[in-house]
Amino acid sequence: MGYVFDLGHDHGRAPRQLKALLGGKGANLAEMTSVLGLPVPPGFTISTAACRAYLAEGWPDGLSEEIAEHLATLERAIGRRLGAASDPLLVSVRSGAAQSMPGMMDTVLNLGLHDASVRGLATAHRDERFALDSFRRLLQMYGHIVLGVPDRVFERDVAAAKARLGVRSDAELAPGALSELIAGHQAHIERATGEPFPADPGVQLRKAIEAVFSSWEGERARAYREREQIPHDGGTAVTVQAMVFGNRDANSGTGVAFTRDPATGENRPYGDVLWNAQGDDVVAGIRHPLPLEELAGKAPQLHVELMGILGRLEAHYRDLCDVEFTIEQGRLFVLQTRVGKRTGRAALRMAVEMVDDPAIALSRAEAIQRVNADQIDGVLHPQFAERDVVVATRGLGASPGAAVGALCLSPERAVEAAAAGTAVILVRDETSPEDVAGMLAAAGILTRRGGLVSHAAVVARGWGKPAVVGAERVEIGEAMIRIGDATVHEGELLSIDGATGVVVLGAVALAAAEPPEALATLCAWADQIRAGHLEVRANADNGADAALARSLGAEGIGLCRTEHMFLDPDRLPVVRKMILADSEEEEAAALDELREVQRADFAAILEAMDGLPVTVRLLDPPLHEFLPDVASLDLKAAIEGLSAEEERLLEAARTWKEQNPMLGTRGVRLGVVKPGLYAMQVRALLDAAEERRAAGGRPIVEVMIPLTVTGEELALARSWVEDAIAEHPGGQLEVAIGTMVETPRAALKADELAARADFFSFGTNDLTQMTFGFSRDDVEARMMSLYLERGLIPANPFHTIDQDAIGELIRLAATRGRAVNAALKLGVCGEHGGDPASIDFFYRAGLDYVSCSPYRVPIARLAAAQAVLATPAP
Amino acid sequence: MGYVFDLGHDHGRAPRQLKALLGGKGANLAEMTSVLGLPVPPGFTISTAACRAYLAEGWPDGLSEEIAEHLATLERAIGRRLGAASDPLLVSVRSGAAQSMPGMMDTVLNLGLHDASVRGLATAHRDERFALDSFRRLLQMYGHIVLGVPDRVFERDVAAAKARLGVRSDAELAPGALSELIAGHQAHIERATGEPFPADPGVQLRKAIEAVFSSWEGERARAYREREQIPHDGGTAVTVQAMVFGNRDANSGTGVAFTRDPATGENRPYGDVLWNAQGDDVVAGIRHPLPLEELAGKAPQLHVELMGILGRLEAHYRDLCDVEFTIEQGRLFVLQTRVGKRTGRAALRMAVEMVDDPAIALSRAEAIQRVNADQIDGVLHPQFAERDVVVATRGLGASPGAAVGALCLSPERAVEAAAAGTAVILVRDETSPEDVAGMLAAAGILTRRGGLVSHAAVVARGWGKPAVVGAERVEIGEAMIRIGDATVHEGELLSIDGATGVVVLGAVALAAAEPPEALATLCAWADQIRAGHLEVRANADNGADAALARSLGAEGIGLCRTEHMFLDPDRLPVVRKMILADSEEEEAAALDELREVQRADFAAILEAMDGLPVTVRLLDPPLHEFLPDVASLDLKAAIEGLSAEEERLLEAARTWKEQNPMLGTRGVRLGVVKPGLYAMQVRALLDAAEERRAAGGRPIVEVMIPLTVTGEELALARSWVEDAIAEHPGGQLEVAIGTMVETPRAALKADELAARADFFSFGTNDLTQMTFGFSRDDVEARMMSLYLERGLIPANPFHTIDQDAIGELIRLAATRGRAVNAALKLGVCGEHGGDPASIDFFYRAGLDYVSCSPYRVPIARLAAAQAVLATPAP
Repeated sequence: MGYVFDLGHDHGRAPRQLKALLGGKGANLAEMTSVLGLPVPPGFTISTAACRAYLAEGWPDGLSEEIAEHLATLERAIGRRLGAASDPLLVSVRSGAAQSMPGMMDTVLNLGLHDASVRGLATAHRDERFALDSFRRLLQMYGHIVLGVPDRVFERDVAAAKARLGVRSDAELAPGALSELIAGHQAHIERATGEPFPADPGVQLRKAIEAVFSSWEGERARAYREREQIPHDGGTAVTVQAMVFGNRDANSGTGVAFTRDPATGENRPYGDVLWNAQGDDVVAGIRHPLPLEELAGKAPQLHVELMGILGRLEAHYRDLCDVEFTIEQGRLFVLQTRVGKRTGRAALRMAVEMVDDPAIALSRAEAIQRVNADQIDGVLHPQFAERDVVVATRGLGASPGAAVGALCLSPERAVEAAAAGTAVILVRDETSPEDVAGMLAAAGILTRRGGLVSHAAVVARGWGKPAVVGAERVEIGEAMIRIGDATVHEGELLSIDGATGVVVLGAVALAAAEPPEALATLCAWADQIRAGHLEVRANADNGADAALARSLGAEGIGLCRTEHMFLDPDRLPVVRKMILADSEEEEAAALDELREVQRADFAAILEAMDGLPVTVRLLDPPLHEFLPDVASLDLKAAIEGLSAEEERLLEAARTWKEQNPMLGTRGVRLGVVKPGLYAMQVRALLDAAEERRAAGGRPIVEVMIPLTVTGEELALARSWVEDAIAEHPGGQLEVAIGTMVETPRAALKADELAARADFFSFGTNDLTQMTFGFSRDDVEARMMSLYLERGLIPANPFHTIDQDAIGELIRLAATRGRAVNAALKLGVCGEHGGDPASIDFFYRAGLDYVSCSPYRVPIARLAAAQAVLATPAP
Repeated sequence: MGYVFDLGHDHGRAPRQLKALLGGKGANLAEMTSVLGLPVPPGFTISTAACRAYLAEGWPDGLSEEIAEHLATLERAIGRRLGAASDPLLVSVRSGAAQSMPGMMDTVLNLGLHDASVRGLATAHRDERFALDSFRRLLQMYGHIVLGVPDRVFERDVAAAKARLGVRSDAELAPGALSELIAGHQAHIERATGEPFPADPGVQLRKAIEAVFSSWEGERARAYREREQIPHDGGTAVTVQAMVFGNRDANSGTGVAFTRDPATGENRPYGDVLWNAQGDDVVAGIRHPLPLEELAGKAPQLHVELMGILGRLEAHYRDLCDVEFTIEQGRLFVLQTRVGKRTGRAALRMAVEMVDDPAIALSRAEAIQRVNADQIDGVLHPQFAERDVVVATRGLGASPGAAVGALCLSPERAVEAAAAGTAVILVRDETSPEDVAGMLAAAGILTRRGGLVSHAAVVARGWGKPAVVGAERVEIGEAMIRIGDATVHEGELLSIDGATGVVVLGAVALAAAEPPEALATLCAWADQIRAGHLEVRANADNGADAALARSLGAEGIGLCRTEHMFLDPDRLPVVRKMILADSEEEEAAALDELREVQRADFAAILEAMDGLPVTVRLLDPPLHEFLPDVASLDLKAAIEGLSAEEERLLEAARTWKEQNPMLGTRGVRLGVVKPGLYAMQVRALLDAAEERRAAGGRPIVEVMIPLTVTGEELALARSWVEDAIAEHPGGQLEVAIGTMVETPRAALKADELAARADFFSFGTNDLTQMTFGFSRDDVEARMMSLYLERGLIPANPFHTIDQDAIGELIRLAATRGRAVNAALKLGVCGEHGGDPASIDFFYRAGLDYVSCSPYRVPIARLAAAQAVLATPAP
């Protein structure tokens, strides 16, 4: 049973395919060592299998012997012994699961030092300060990470020493000061654990390995896996590697490089070097690193060598690589590589350019699979126009898009300010359902507490509003906030980037969303792949939106809601006339007036979508939405009295008020209650189509009946539409007539409906509301983040389709519907139509099209192609 | 192809089993003729097959010849020829479908008369008045029914003639007057149809038969079949029978008899004879008929003969028979029989007594199948205590139970009067959703218009409130109504019987519901049959209801709602304390207070149900139900200001207000939001159980989690319950823990839930609301009657389970749940648990128990036995 593998071990296949066994870090180190022969410090990886065995039954038999054997090999290769009193070998110990996750044990560097070996190190390197500095760092890292002593007790001592000596960086601490700190650190450890810091390097190593294994079961790691649906039985690997020292001398250093620019995607290596430093010093930001392009001037040979490595890595991984390297006394070592994170803009540009790059030669399909929805979403939202903003602090990017606004600490004031035309950034410790009005009014949201499923994150994403959460360094005071030393008062400007989590003081210029050219190229490729498999339409209610959707690649309108036309302030009085009508004549007169305005609306949409299908949903929302609120009229009545008109409106509002409007008199039920309404809408649509045809256009019209639950309802509604068509003076237009499937009953009785429908459009929002019994208005704001945090639900079902139950209803409706009507066309017009995971499901469920908001159309086009690539049609 | 069958034809099996072929009337006449040899006037039946052929392709080939042949046989048997100029044969023509239905063509009597044969009839019978009277009646019936001339044109002439001559009954019209009327009637017919009344008896017969056939397709008949789900392809039969004349002379007469008393069930024939009369005269009510028991004195031989016939019929049909007979010059003829309608009380008594009656010897199973839910429901509601009330008018009995109250014509005044403690009968032309508050306040409802699915009928049945609808003779005036000549002013008393549709002026004494002894006997028999198949529990929320339910035979409590305990005015302040709590301590203190009062409530219930299972549902309704209404507090704030306490309540009410509370923060979601709440309820329940056990009782406790949608939710809620049990100081009580299945998702994911549940209880009310997207509060009052009338839905799914979709979800949940957990117990606690058709479905779906309101328990016991009898377990 082999638990431990040398980085150069021949696994029989490419190590980078063995992440499950070696962890991500270990696999890439092995790849670079055994396949690419890059200068990687030697070492070995203890596999995830050892971790699993350890967690199940304790330290595995034989593991100690295996480690000893590999350690001996390492010692032979380097020519030094771990923690020897003279010229000792030091190692780093790193965790590495198949997928990186928060909460796992961090790296321990310089392992092997103790009171004796530190002197050996000093002698061997002829540098006491370096040796003591390395030991002090080990004590802090080991004490904190392996032994669980709070980090702050070490930090406090270091800060006190620097203050006392008036120096700013660790490098300036003299050996005497470092020795004192070492003694203090050791005393802390003994006090906290009851035992002295282990002098035996073997014990140090064993304890560090056990700490890595155990951190797999840590609370944060478990919670993360729950949330991300990563199985708990993977375990983590541990990589033990010979130390190289970037903090050795002025000819040493450490750096990070990307094979291309991860922000713009430009094909030019990008990175920094910091001379005479170890990893942490770069983050501390005290000294300025050297940009990579300047390295050529300062150390031309090193530059050539590094460029060569970057080139080989990118060609080998066929993707952007993110590389950590260290220079020890002029010698270059690669410490880690992985496929690099990138902005949306960069992802798009690289995907397209790597197709044309002969060294990489991505296929178009691969290029399409390289870009995800969040990345496209990012480039379609406003962004910071400046590249080098001064980051005040960084939280979690919870909802993409950048926003600038006046600081506001209360939801009530946010509402007032927004009403007065002032953009605000609402800042809260965390948000709760009482804050939603303020959140809606704000341009952006920033919270101190909470993660990506906190209330603020969930609600903001639901609205597509920029939000940064969990920015813990923000302190909220009375009418002001503090971030580090800076203070911002209410009313002063603040900028946030909801994609990156960056918070900036003052106003950052915003760049409007300007989709890069690469997006168009990639979408065009995607269209070729998804053609004949999954159509992408848009939800649009007016000509402007329809034109926008078409420009973004929509192949028609899957949902044109007619209620927005009714809510227009010009039309509302006419709609009310219809509702208040005392006689059939009055009602008919109001309907005639509405027919004229609806005709104009439809004409604009049909023009924008000429030659493409336009699905018009007949009026859906409860009538009370067109009436004033009962409570406010009651209030007015009590205080100042009502006009006769208002009295009538109040009476109507009382009549139409409902306990649960979501489940009330809406959809086709309205048609049953107000029989002339749907016929009027169809006539207006036919008027517009006729006008379009007369102008030489090619209108394609589909009429959709909402909220059907029985076959008889649909038959009746269909008869209204057919009668209106038959009686229409224009030429005979072929009109497809279909229904929303948005109640569980409609899905179950799809056979009954399909016999009377040319198409189904799944209204997945309502279907989700009814199947879960979740009123989106109430439950999403109040409960969803609680449910996600507690793992009561795997994902927000309003964003990503619940494949379990809603998915079953959709599949079942598709099967039953097509069994009765083989020509039945199936689509989706809920918000899930723009969500990639949902699109993948819809494709597999055999749907013909998805429809989403115009700005999601490019995402849907790409996601549809990705779905086709993931599951090719039989 | 034989279309026509003599009443004496030998079909090879009992004609009464051939209703589909011969129609109900024809089958019973054939049964009496060919099997029983009773004195039935000879004749023949044209089968429903002929009707079907006629409706499909017109008058069938060969039918005329067949009719001619059977007519010839009839003429030979009687020795007269149809419509002959001397001593003519006259016939009656009657429709008769397998099931009787409104809107079908009525009977035509005296067919065969014309200007010539009427003289022959007069001569043969030596009675000119009789002959002319018969002819006049034929012209009116034939003109109206066959030729479609409005009945009122004939009625008007007869009324004018009587007025002119100062007589009250037709019998007093002299031959001269009758001749004039005959001439007038014939003129009407010729004017209306463009043709004279057909003198040819063959033409008369053919047209009458065609009219019967065509009436099958009449609008009312079609609508009735739609509603009752009777197939449209049955068709009707036509029976042609030699006339006998009850209006022949003083030694003739007509009558109706029941083999037992249809009102009380007493085993004693019951009926009336009217001398010298034809059918219609009895209804006109001008002369007083002779009660059957007095016939023995007046005509002892006839009485003996009739009693013999009634005895033979009852023994033969093994049920109450309803018989029409005619006496022609001392000779008795049976014109029709059928199984008689009866009151609930009579149905129960007869079912039990017929088991002991050696002539009938019903089995207990048959007895159980003889009684239906409406009949039991009737005896469990208050009824008129007086038997012979003066019927002012009669509408449709739309919702059983009798009510007495002051006339009230407006819903607003009904609410006021009810608030002042006055019982009212709300009278409306018809009702609409605006009337519901008034309807709820009224003791009973009476409408002029509408049928059994009108708004008033649907809503009243939903509430179990007495209602009579479609009482067309009621005229509504200003603050008064008129019924015939009588006037009732608002505030004056009125009585209605919602079972029979009877309306009575003034107050009728009401008898409280006193279930007859026979009900107990029948239910006990039913229990033997359903034992081991389907348990019957009750929904009860307090000790008194639990005791009542047990006395009515409940075998436990299937649903104890804990919210009613929270709404008690004593407790509401404590509940509000919990909601308003600013700290965990305050919340815990309020929960402790609630624990004490809940304990007492539970103790009473467990005592009443000692030894039987009690299923307690943890708190379900949205918290806003325990808070004052936002709008009314807003109003108060604007007018008089709020106290500090009220300000806090307003804030809480705003926080908890929801758009769609039905789909909001309720059920287990409350538990997630207020984690201590459910644990407190479980502790209170365990306290009560412990107390009960200490007192020597045997408490059986089941805890039910409401509104679950995911397995994780149930796992979490189950852990609260289990923790509360584990920590409870009392001895360990075995507590079954289950969940409601009331969302479509819960049904679909039943496997996930079953792994964490000991039982499921289907909440069919909510399941129906969510699966249809019907908010009961809104849709039932506003839409349901419209939907039922238009046939958009086959039945009100809140009364009778929608077997299609809800049924599929229930079956699927049962299958999936049991696949994971074979011991899973399944029940229903929605209102459907008391509906016989639904109970039949639940039994077939494999459920273990139903639970319903206490007064429905006897119905459920009987219905469960009927279900077992209808579909014996495999």
